[in-house]
Amino acid sequence: MEKNYWITEEPIQLQDVMDKVVRREAGAISTFTGIVREFTKGKRTLYLEYQAYIPMAEKKLAQIGQEIAEKWGNTKTAIVHRIGKLDISEIAVAIAVSTPHRKDAFEASEYAIDRIKEIVPIWKKEHWEDGTLWIGDQQETTAYKQGMPAKVQMEMKQGEKE
Amino acid sequence: MEKNYWITEEPIQLQDVMDKVVRREAGAISTFTGIVREFTKGKRTLYLEYQAYIPMAEKKLAQIGQEIAEKWGNTKTAIVHRIGKLDISEIAVAIAVSTPHRKDAFEASEYAIDRIKEIVPIWKKEHWEDGTLWIGDQQETTAYKQGMPAKVQMEMKQGEKE
Repeated sequence: MEKNYWITEEPIQLQDVMDKVVRREAGAISTFTGIVREFTKGKRTLYLEYQAYIPMAEKKLAQIGQEIAEKWGNTKTAIVHRIGKLDISEIAVAIAVSTPHRKDAFEASEYAIDRIKEIVPIWKKEHWEDGTLWIGDQQETTAYKQGMPAKVQMEMKQGEKE
Repeated sequence: MEKNYWITEEPIQLQDVMDKVVRREAGAISTFTGIVREFTKGKRTLYLEYQAYIPMAEKKLAQIGQEIAEKWGNTKTAIVHRIGKLDISEIAVAIAVSTPHRKDAFEASEYAIDRIKEIVPIWKKEHWEDGTLWIGDQQETTAYKQGMPAKVQMEMKQGEKE
């Protein structure tokens, strides 16, 4: 089966994501790519490390695609997020949405990245010259001392038992 | 010199356009791709043919990049438009804009495609099952019986003389 929502440890090729949404009734494709930025608030990042609760993350990415289909109609969406160690300018996340007309493509693509930050269980560890920090949620309002919040670790353990 | 604004007769690779805007201070890249749609208002397109006044078109694409830099600051933009015969789902135009943060990338990318339709001298000929039509301007408010409007043909002749 074609997989349009996935987590990967490999470098992301934007073309692969776009190819998944090309179709005869589409006239517009909007993509969004999040890449590792060197400076955040004046502080230099050496590299990032991402961790995900993979089955839940892929499920949530698919949910976002479903939300987009319901909100805009006649869309096709693909989303990939990378985990592991990422260097500056490497792609962390890529989204592609195809629609018949362009306005919907832009809106849906922006909606997708906003929702990823809200609901997808992915954490990132900043590696700076003078230390590291796990950024607890993607909206960056909470910091955790370790990777995953304890709540998620418990859920993962429960998942393994099921 | 690196060329970020160009007209081509070759198939467009989105990755090439994106690669031109990746940089260490960017955290977000928005791309827009216009592809040939099979149906428009219920009418089936077999293929499209694009024609451009190339030197002026490339100049206007660069102007759009300049406008984006002035409006949003700290952006890098690349735009390519294809001419010649294009089949269904082939890329007619691709835009990439990189910015430190994502909101600017979306806005600038949407601005770029709107401006391309407004100011870049490119015309398209629709080939349907039952006929053809040159679409006179990209906002599709004017139809011409031949490719370029007479005014542009005159300007091109003047350009050749200069």
